[in-house]
Amino acid sequence: MIVELNKNLSPAETNEFCRKLSEYKCNLLWKSDKRLLLEGDFDLLTRNLKNFPEFGRTEVISEKYKLVNRKFNPGGTEIKFGDFGFSEDSFNIIAGPCAVESREQIFKIAEFVKSRGIKFLRGGVFKPRTSPYAFQGLKEEGLKLLAEVKEKFDLKIITEVMDASRLEAVSEVVDIIQIGSRNMQNFSLLEAVGKKGIPVLLKRGMAATVEDYLMSAEHIAYHGNQNIILCERGIKTFETSSRNTLDLNSVTIMKEKSHLPVLVDPSHGTGIRDKVIPMALAGSACGADGLIIEIHNEPEKALSDGQQSLTFEMFDALLSKVKQVICVNNKSLS
Amino acid sequence: MIVELNKNLSPAETNEFCRKLSEYKCNLLWKSDKRLLLEGDFDLLTRNLKNFPEFGRTEVISEKYKLVNRKFNPGGTEIKFGDFGFSEDSFNIIAGPCAVESREQIFKIAEFVKSRGIKFLRGGVFKPRTSPYAFQGLKEEGLKLLAEVKEKFDLKIITEVMDASRLEAVSEVVDIIQIGSRNMQNFSLLEAVGKKGIPVLLKRGMAATVEDYLMSAEHIAYHGNQNIILCERGIKTFETSSRNTLDLNSVTIMKEKSHLPVLVDPSHGTGIRDKVIPMALAGSACGADGLIIEIHNEPEKALSDGQQSLTFEMFDALLSKVKQVICVNNKSLS
Amino acid sequence: MIVELNKNLSPAETNEFCRKLSEYKCNLLWKSDKRLLLEGDFDLLTRNLKNFPEFGRTEVISEKYKLVNRKFNPGGTEIKFGDFGFSEDSFNIIAGPCAVESREQIFKIAEFVKSRGIKFLRGGVFKPRTSPYAFQGLKEEGLKLLAEVKEKFDLKIITEVMDASRLEAVSEVVDIIQIGSRNMQNFSLLEAVGKKGIPVLLKRGMAATVEDYLMSAEHIAYHGNQNIILCERGIKTFETSSRNTLDLNSVTIMKEKSHLPVLVDPSHGTGIRDKVIPMALAGSACGADGLIIEIHNEPEKALSDGQQSLTFEMFDALLSKVKQVICVNNKSLS
Amino acid sequence: MIVELNKNLSPAETNEFCRKLSEYKCNLLWKSDKRLLLEGDFDLLTRNLKNFPEFGRTEVISEKYKLVNRKFNPGGTEIKFGDFGFSEDSFNIIAGPCAVESREQIFKIAEFVKSRGIKFLRGGVFKPRTSPYAFQGLKEEGLKLLAEVKEKFDLKIITEVMDASRLEAVSEVVDIIQIGSRNMQNFSLLEAVGKKGIPVLLKRGMAATVEDYLMSAEHIAYHGNQNIILCERGIKTFETSSRNTLDLNSVTIMKEKSHLPVLVDPSHGTGIRDKVIPMALAGSACGADGLIIEIHNEPEKALSDGQQSLTFEMFDALLSKVKQVICVNNKSLS
Repeated sequence: MIVELNKNLSPAETNEFCRKLSEYKCNLLWKSDKRLLLEGDFDLLTRNLKNFPEFGRTEVISEKYKLVNRKFNPGGTEIKFGDFGFSEDSFNIIAGPCAVESREQIFKIAEFVKSRGIKFLRGGVFKPRTSPYAFQGLKEEGLKLLAEVKEKFDLKIITEVMDASRLEAVSEVVDIIQIGSRNMQNFSLLEAVGKKGIPVLLKRGMAATVEDYLMSAEHIAYHGNQNIILCERGIKTFETSSRNTLDLNSVTIMKEKSHLPVLVDPSHGTGIRDKVIPMALAGSACGADGLIIEIHNEPEKALSDGQQSLTFEMFDALLSKVKQVICVNNKSLS
Repeated sequence: MIVELNKNLSPAETNEFCRKLSEYKCNLLWKSDKRLLLEGDFDLLTRNLKNFPEFGRTEVISEKYKLVNRKFNPGGTEIKFGDFGFSEDSFNIIAGPCAVESREQIFKIAEFVKSRGIKFLRGGVFKPRTSPYAFQGLKEEGLKLLAEVKEKFDLKIITEVMDASRLEAVSEVVDIIQIGSRNMQNFSLLEAVGKKGIPVLLKRGMAATVEDYLMSAEHIAYHGNQNIILCERGIKTFETSSRNTLDLNSVTIMKEKSHLPVLVDPSHGTGIRDKVIPMALAGSACGADGLIIEIHNEPEKALSDGQQSLTFEMFDALLSKVKQVICVNNKSLS
Repeated sequence: MIVELNKNLSPAETNEFCRKLSEYKCNLLWKSDKRLLLEGDFDLLTRNLKNFPEFGRTEVISEKYKLVNRKFNPGGTEIKFGDFGFSEDSFNIIAGPCAVESREQIFKIAEFVKSRGIKFLRGGVFKPRTSPYAFQGLKEEGLKLLAEVKEKFDLKIITEVMDASRLEAVSEVVDIIQIGSRNMQNFSLLEAVGKKGIPVLLKRGMAATVEDYLMSAEHIAYHGNQNIILCERGIKTFETSSRNTLDLNSVTIMKEKSHLPVLVDPSHGTGIRDKVIPMALAGSACGADGLIIEIHNEPEKALSDGQQSLTFEMFDALLSKVKQVICVNNKSLS
Repeated sequence: MIVELNKNLSPAETNEFCRKLSEYKCNLLWKSDKRLLLEGDFDLLTRNLKNFPEFGRTEVISEKYKLVNRKFNPGGTEIKFGDFGFSEDSFNIIAGPCAVESREQIFKIAEFVKSRGIKFLRGGVFKPRTSPYAFQGLKEEGLKLLAEVKEKFDLKIITEVMDASRLEAVSEVVDIIQIGSRNMQNFSLLEAVGKKGIPVLLKRGMAATVEDYLMSAEHIAYHGNQNIILCERGIKTFETSSRNTLDLNSVTIMKEKSHLPVLVDPSHGTGIRDKVIPMALAGSACGADGLIIEIHNEPEKALSDGQQSLTFEMFDALLSKVKQVICVNNKSLS
């Protein structure tokens, strides 16, 4: 159960209220300035609080995820970067290469992205790769390139972090930390980004149910960070004709069940360049709050994921079609 | 390999050509007036045919599905009903209840459907039900109601057939035979509808890969019927928050790999009324050729699938939004 | 709820009892000589019946499957063929080729099977094949060969039927009808074999949950046939290193939840000859009531499924190891 | 391709050989004292090496996993702890609670385990939990308890590590580091345990194919550690009647494809206490090299996974049956 305390409650009154909780046999799971999350005999507490409406409103949350539950924040979370940001009234596209490969490459792509009015640039520098023999990313050198790009083009930067030990250094450069699918239940990393408070793009794990996924977001929120962006990127199924099965049903369910913004990643969701645009449109139509798209100046030479990266021309086509489709949900590109 | 024979070939020339095939060690798999499907030493035959270009053009089809392969009919199949029909240039909605329940019910729904300009009415009379204790459909009585509705409202009727023994009787009433997911690999039934030649809506099986699915369509085509409409309706995955996982990736792949029209069924694809509209929009955006939607005059009283049936009001909302979205693919509602 | 009527109840008393049911607002779902299956206000009926213990014992079955539920027949079903048969105290092996290919082939295999003391011979004559261009079985000609083999070797014969129209003819020859995975939810066929009463081997569908599966068995039982043998043969998952994923967990669950015998099919369950023996042993160890094994005199020349068929030598190895393993469950080969 | 250098090659000869590799356009992926792993024009190099057989034998490894490939070490890996250990000739059971909960609990369980001749004790102290509100383990305090237990009972200890920052401290206490399913593709952690060199039990991820899984083991080997124990613990499928689907097919495939020992975890593989014994027997029968079993002195009071923990009595039953079953594979309990 959440208790949303009345705003005009004094600290002393709040303390008194918290003291009373133990009388009602309630256990405090989590606490912020304004809200308490409790477990215990909800009926008993609710009855008691009805006698003390001056403390605040209460609501039962029966789902296992509490802090990321829509009921916790019915109006939806906004993650602001100055005058724009992620929210359920906006639509944002994050674009960029799978991996930062060279100064020339990332500058060309950043320049293109900026010229199209896109505000968020993605680019991996620490790459989780199935094979130890594959390109593992430019690491610190790539991070420096991202810092340069950020300064030159005034883009918000998003990159993946694979373990907590790099979090401090990366956070100094980038605006959004990505936690990849393979680390969706790396609870040490979730705790670290939770404590850090920086905006996080948490990708859905390949075999995570919506509940599993929201529970991972709950870990981040529990450790103090509500700036979480969800992202459907395809799940593992028996189907082999596409790299993953993009589960757009889940987007509509997450929008209902959680207050967090939800993006769609049709690049990983399909793994096939020709299918990225139609599935980006599908994601846009079903109510997502944005897209994350892999683009490359020379996809055929990309060091990773080239087969699913759009060319600049294709990205332009995507952009014009997405703008059309999101009207149906009363959204426009920020 | 397919050989598309020159149109002006005389029967004698065709026969001569077929006789030569055995010299080239080719085996004839299938034959129509205009085309031959062969297996054998493609290089040898191709070389020989180059020396005889007057016979026709040849093309190798490496996929296991041949007759339903896009290469077999690059322009796409049209399934016409007078001046409208299913094709890659059109968009059609099939609407109606899961099951025909009573004269009053089916007439109310048919009247509504007709009033919205919809041309195809669905309604089950032989219902495949997981439980033998559940409502199994009105059977012959329901079929009569469909015949009345068809006459009164001039709607094209689609209903499911579960075994070949009913095919003759049902075909006299309805315009399109549906083969349900559970019968996607009921090869006896596929053969029967193949020989019958009536338009078929073949639903994807719950664990069928795109290849499995197209192979089932191939069975129908092999037995003489190319009037096949495909339909993605959700697959079985580990996710439990929706009834099935609607696999829209597969729609984009089937549109590329096959020349058959592809519909999306967001009612079974989600199993949740509130998610039908967003997923119908997603299906429309990704390039499907139409939708099949469960609607009911009183969903809460429906004898089956009520929880995923739209009300009339919701269907109106869906209709106006779908019209917007399909513009992006240069389609309009027929 | 089931009501097991007292054996000494006269027909008149039984009728009177049934008449009372409507007073108790109970609905009769199914009825045999000895038992009634009811839905309705269980508490009310139970209370009433406690006042009339002379009618019989009652038990609530909360699962959706009733007649195949362990609670319906706690001692387990026996399917007898003279002095041997399937039951939870016995262990049987069904062996034979995927398809009957020729008189020579099926006689050689039958002779070998017989020489090893095996009592059940499998052999497909109507083959469900993904491709219409693949070998579809010898059909009626194959059925005649099975009749000859049966006569000559005194083996119990099992073969697959794909639609109800063949059931009569096939039942005259064979002892057990197989319903394949692809037809697990072909309810017309389930009804037909239910009414026919012949022993049925019902294979689990590739995407069927244990509940779905038992509900299909329930259809057969509902139409009058309790002679059902279940068979786990692998499910569809994301794993591609074996043809299917043999789900032995489900064997242990079906043994608990249902009174029907449960076999394991490691041939289809793995699709790889080298893995058939270890997985046959695994199935034997976890408590299955038998195995169904594909063998062939010349696997490398088999017209179907050769890659998963055992040689005679391998079958001998399997036999001796299985005998060892089943001791752990106090079973021996019948 | 691997090159196994002749043992009597001098360092100078080895160096000369390595220098020649660049002439043959081969790229050195990995190197140990005795072996080189190369990519490049295998034919060219093989031809050249045939002319210089004094350098050693070569073998092509077409699979993506090289160092953990059976071809790299055909005799199978042994992981020794004094006079016992994991190998393909032995069978070991690891037993213990899901989590260390108290001094009393872990001592009772350790005493029991020791009394049964078991050599390996499991017990989690850093627990990856889906919910941040669930018991997260005793952490450092639990680690101290493990150190005491180890000293008192002379048991080999295995515990899970969730991130590299704890690896040093944990390695001082325990004998085997467990990497859990959720961290199977936590490449930072794989690298760290690879460099550390301590024996690792790497659990299969819930949606990892056998290839994905072996590639994760390859990461550990690549960073210098071949002391890897694989463990099948169930995968995510559509089936909901057990917690996971134990994929024993994969055990037989991993035994063929890799030289690493393979265990089975029927506790997580089923999630149901009553199913642990039958599935432990199945795992033993199919050729696994051991089991990892959750046991608890009072399962019903366990702070985590109590529903899948065996009682001491059940463990005794398991032990006696497993001993019988492994005879079939010519194994005995070490």
